[in-house]
Amino acid sequence: MKKLENLMDRVINRVNINLREFSIEVGALLRDLVPENQLVKFYAFYGIWSNHPIHFHFSNSSLAGSYFLGRCKVDNSILYKCDIRGDELKMKGDVFDVNGTAVTVEDDEVIWIKDSLLIKTLVHNYSHNPEKLELFLIKNSASAPYANIHGSPIEGCFLEPFSTVDLTSLHDCRVGTYTYVQVGELSHIEVESGRVWIRNKDIFDFNYRFPQDVLRTRYIAFVPGKGAMGMFMDFAEDRKMDFQRLYDVVHLDSPIKEIPQGASINRYSVWKGKNHISRNVLVSQRAFLEEAWLGEGANAQENCYISYSRLEGFNVTAHGATIIYAQLGRKVFVGFNSFLQGKADAPLIVGDESIIMPHTIMDLTESVTVPGNHLVWGYIRTQEDLEDHSIPLERLSKIKDEISIGNMQFRGSGEAFVAAFRHRIQHILEANGAFFDGEYGKGHAQTGQNISFNIIQPYPRGEARGLFPTIDIEP
Amino acid sequence: MKKLENLMDRVINRVNINLREFSIEVGALLRDLVPENQLVKFYAFYGIWSNHPIHFHFSNSSLAGSYFLGRCKVDNSILYKCDIRGDELKMKGDVFDVNGTAVTVEDDEVIWIKDSLLIKTLVHNYSHNPEKLELFLIKNSASAPYANIHGSPIEGCFLEPFSTVDLTSLHDCRVGTYTYVQVGELSHIEVESGRVWIRNKDIFDFNYRFPQDVLRTRYIAFVPGKGAMGMFMDFAEDRKMDFQRLYDVVHLDSPIKEIPQGASINRYSVWKGKNHISRNVLVSQRAFLEEAWLGEGANAQENCYISYSRLEGFNVTAHGATIIYAQLGRKVFVGFNSFLQGKADAPLIVGDESIIMPHTIMDLTESVTVPGNHLVWGYIRTQEDLEDHSIPLERLSKIKDEISIGNMQFRGSGEAFVAAFRHRIQHILEANGAFFDGEYGKGHAQTGQNISFNIIQPYPRGEARGLFPTIDIEP
Repeated sequence: MKKLENLMDRVINRVNINLREFSIEVGALLRDLVPENQLVKFYAFYGIWSNHPIHFHFSNSSLAGSYFLGRCKVDNSILYKCDIRGDELKMKGDVFDVNGTAVTVEDDEVIWIKDSLLIKTLVHNYSHNPEKLELFLIKNSASAPYANIHGSPIEGCFLEPFSTVDLTSLHDCRVGTYTYVQVGELSHIEVESGRVWIRNKDIFDFNYRFPQDVLRTRYIAFVPGKGAMGMFMDFAEDRKMDFQRLYDVVHLDSPIKEIPQGASINRYSVWKGKNHISRNVLVSQRAFLEEAWLGEGANAQENCYISYSRLEGFNVTAHGATIIYAQLGRKVFVGFNSFLQGKADAPLIVGDESIIMPHTIMDLTESVTVPGNHLVWGYIRTQEDLEDHSIPLERLSKIKDEISIGNMQFRGSGEAFVAAFRHRIQHILEANGAFFDGEYGKGHAQTGQNISFNIIQPYPRGEARGLFPTIDIEP
Repeated sequence: MKKLENLMDRVINRVNINLREFSIEVGALLRDLVPENQLVKFYAFYGIWSNHPIHFHFSNSSLAGSYFLGRCKVDNSILYKCDIRGDELKMKGDVFDVNGTAVTVEDDEVIWIKDSLLIKTLVHNYSHNPEKLELFLIKNSASAPYANIHGSPIEGCFLEPFSTVDLTSLHDCRVGTYTYVQVGELSHIEVESGRVWIRNKDIFDFNYRFPQDVLRTRYIAFVPGKGAMGMFMDFAEDRKMDFQRLYDVVHLDSPIKEIPQGASINRYSVWKGKNHISRNVLVSQRAFLEEAWLGEGANAQENCYISYSRLEGFNVTAHGATIIYAQLGRKVFVGFNSFLQGKADAPLIVGDESIIMPHTIMDLTESVTVPGNHLVWGYIRTQEDLEDHSIPLERLSKIKDEISIGNMQFRGSGEAFVAAFRHRIQHILEANGAFFDGEYGKGHAQTGQNISFNIIQPYPRGEARGLFPTIDIEP
């Protein structure tokens, strides 16, 4: 165990040094979240398929419970129950547009995690740093449970629980609990808890901040020495045992006899009760379905919970989103770590093509209906709450300067904002294979059908206990 | 699948070329034994522990159902349900005695399997070729089910079903069905089926050959186009399903609550009914126990079946041995691929320290008692048969020139032969940890207690279907 302890100390020191201006001690915040016996207990696994070049390199690392796909390198790091998805990385020869200049990618891109401590964190997409097209680097960084690192190379950062950094390069930043940032580039900044911030240079800026006391006392708080607490954590903990059995067997039979054309159900997803999936549906690993009805081309991404709900089709349910007792129309988008909880007798109803912003909490005390083509954000419990937490997309499109609604401030071009969102939703659906016609439009739903998982385990004893051997996998 | 087919053709061609003087076509004999869908279906696994340096390298190979331990390299080969145990290899700095000259091993030895097709074959021990101390090479070779390659580097060889090459360097040889050779070195020779041949230069030579028709019609025959047939194969086939469930789960609970001190039960062994194991017992992977009682320091090695039998202690049950309805005294040795089958009402009884030669068939029609300190070989069904298939070790020790008993011829020093056997049995017990006192004398039984298994799977689709990715594992 000696080596694992040394590694933990080393990683924590590095993150602390990078963040010294904020005088935080990452060790005090994270060390207890990964008890050493847990790091010895769980295996890690990586996918083998023919759809994308594979490359895995692991050295001097602990990888307990983590999942890898695509091209990933991990050195001197501790990854606990993380999902590292290198299946959307750029490939050699891809042409990348940087402010109108076409740049050719010179080598297959790789996710490289170095000197970092990530806990229950999702890493996905590709590096949006145009200066380093071939490398999605995560270095000298630490993250707490249910953080999402999406298309965001980060160096010297600390991500608190349920935070999301999306399409943003971060350097020496602290990102608060349940904070969402999609701002292109940030450095030496502390982003406060519960902020939802989307900025595209001078074109637009969307800004919202959750009421702090309600977030902290009810949903999610990060307490030094105690870790992440609140309803979000309880919810995940309550469903932990349903996942455990998935890891105990090597081959798992599909939960349904016939998988619809173009659809895939990852064998590391939970399937409870009676669910329905239609063609081109994608159910990712660590997704949870219970009495769910998913229409054509809908997807349920990592760490999603969809219960007692109906999604009409072409729905995006982003990483970490929860949907309970809801009826979502076609092309409804539910962003990262959103928490939508209706009740059996008070469901949430969302009309076609509405966009639920990342990190939105809709914890209903009564039935709420969101009309079609609306943008929704923030904290909503009643139909009345919706009034100052939503805007028709058409109205937003017409904003040219600024608008404030409740706690939300928007500046810039509403048209560009709406177009960017629509474009992205379309891209996600395409990437996931929602429009696959049997020949064209292949995406994750189709490529995920033929994947095997290799299992790797740590040293069970001795000095290296809990560390994994050095492993290199090439095609 | 294209690449796997090419690989199969390539390997078969190479073996055929090496064996061209015997004009055999290995493809006709082996191709049907490994249906391509089976090669895609099974995972391979390798052990991670801290007791011995690990190194694994796999490239351009199919490894379905195979097991690896220690230091192994596999290139351009097809290994189907093989056991490659590199845990007794020489280590850097070991001093090896070559005819009285002390030679230091310059690097950790490695098993390297290259351009070969091995089916249900065990590879174990270390290279006994003093010219290549650091390499246990298996090249341009093919083997049929239940062959054992023990301490024997081989090049350009074809091993038929249930054959064993033991402590012997082989070059361009064909080894017949159920043949055992332990002769130091052999090249360009066809060893006929059912021969048991142990030779140590001019010091001694033991030679026996099974009656061919009884071997072929009852126990084991190798029929081109049909594969291996007979009671030996049926016996293994009948128990296949008991093994299957072992491979379906990642973690398997121990079959007994408390494992006696110093003992280990490999999680890939089958445990049926009520078994008893004592301290320092070793139960290896793919061993099968059913109503077995194993005394202190007894071992059950790979592909062993021990049913309704009692082994008093310090028993060696070598790779592939079967023991049914038998009572074996202390330190009884049962050699490779021996088949000892008593009946409930006609058990086999073997006295202390007797040696059942490798490849001995005792298929009883009545109860048979072997007194202690006897050497037993050949084909025995009744007490009377024993007369010309055994000799007291004391009497054998006194032989200085030669002796014939039944089909067995012995030439040379009986004393040296008996001493060599006794020495080897002692060494095997030591290596297996039979004498571990809680501090000194650690062996496989103790080191096997703390081992994890990593699982690797082949490409499920595409050109490379059935092949495994290139993998390198270092400490």
